[in-house]
Amino acid sequence: MNKTPSPKVAARGPVDHEVRDQIVTAATEHFRLYGYEKTTVSDLAKAIGFSKAYIYKFFESKQAIGEMICSNCLQQIQADVRAAVDEVDSPPEKLRRMLKALVESCLRLFFLDRKLYDIAASAASGRWPATLVYEAFIEQTISDILQQGRQSGDFERKTPLDETTRAIQLIMRPCFNPLLLQHGLDTTDEAPALLSSLILRSLSP
Amino acid sequence: MNKTPSPKVAARGPVDHEVRDQIVTAATEHFRLYGYEKTTVSDLAKAIGFSKAYIYKFFESKQAIGEMICSNCLQQIQADVRAAVDEVDSPPEKLRRMLKALVESCLRLFFLDRKLYDIAASAASGRWPATLVYEAFIEQTISDILQQGRQSGDFERKTPLDETTRAIQLIMRPCFNPLLLQHGLDTTDEAPALLSSLILRSLSP
Repeated sequence: MNKTPSPKVAARGPVDHEVRDQIVTAATEHFRLYGYEKTTVSDLAKAIGFSKAYIYKFFESKQAIGEMICSNCLQQIQADVRAAVDEVDSPPEKLRRMLKALVESCLRLFFLDRKLYDIAASAASGRWPATLVYEAFIEQTISDILQQGRQSGDFERKTPLDETTRAIQLIMRPCFNPLLLQHGLDTTDEAPALLSSLILRSLSP
Repeated sequence: MNKTPSPKVAARGPVDHEVRDQIVTAATEHFRLYGYEKTTVSDLAKAIGFSKAYIYKFFESKQAIGEMICSNCLQQIQADVRAAVDEVDSPPEKLRRMLKALVESCLRLFFLDRKLYDIAASAASGRWPATLVYEAFIEQTISDILQQGRQSGDFERKTPLDETTRAIQLIMRPCFNPLLLQHGLDTTDEAPALLSSLILRSLSP
């Protein structure tokens, strides 16, 4: 039986964000098992034990749920990268850590059992808002590290900062964009170290 | 009516490689219009006007035809890259030309009207032999340019040649592998110049 709350229950029921979290948690598990693309809101409602109408009270579409899941995942990657970068002081080492953390975190979240890969793929190809925030975070992190390295004298200062930032972001793309990463799973062992070393050579003063 | 030659025609008929070429030419056109994945050998036979059995005399499978088409395409890209690299003498300029020619040639062959993209995608994901030859060519071309640049004093010599070659090949991958290139079509204007410049900075002595 569907657990749509009766008006009485709703009055003293859980607050909205709790229900939203509950839906997102259940949907994450369901998408993990059956895939995002193949699941409809009806499937989801049945699996969670809510009515479809009740889910639509909190999310306007399947994509809205997917966006929330995707946003959680990408925020996790951003937190992992931030932690890895903050762990060390030297800008060159920060750059190495950043690339390594990006690859490891993306692999864990999107490719371990291919769990949430198809949400990430839809997000990346549909350019969902969470993807844009994620890409802006990566760009900003690169730019911050570069500025610190220019200040400390570790990195050259001749090339315009924007140009260097953009070039490094392009080089890192196959490591942080799940659509590209899926075709480079055989290179994830060697890529972070090789790419970091080449980038660092390009930055030498 | 199927144009399968009668024994008499076959006796003084076209030599094998001519028939093979004829099949490949017709199949290329057919795949361009209807896609490789969706076309069967029966569709192909009907379209060309040969019997299915006659096609199987020359190619053991649809993939064998696809491999020939793909091999022709990849050879074309290799010829374009070779011509672009040979046009100039300076190793840094050779490297710039290589990357530019790779992107332009791949775009023209695989993405103009998405023509032969799905053959290229099958080839790349199935690691068909032509793909391996193509990748080996790219690796060799990078290595040759690096050696010339080390000889001329344009490039540094401290980093092991293998390591530099491999790192540059990884950076170029999104430009020459159609599976990756399809997700970077919005970056093909800026990527060759930005990446070449960064690579060249990394190679400075």
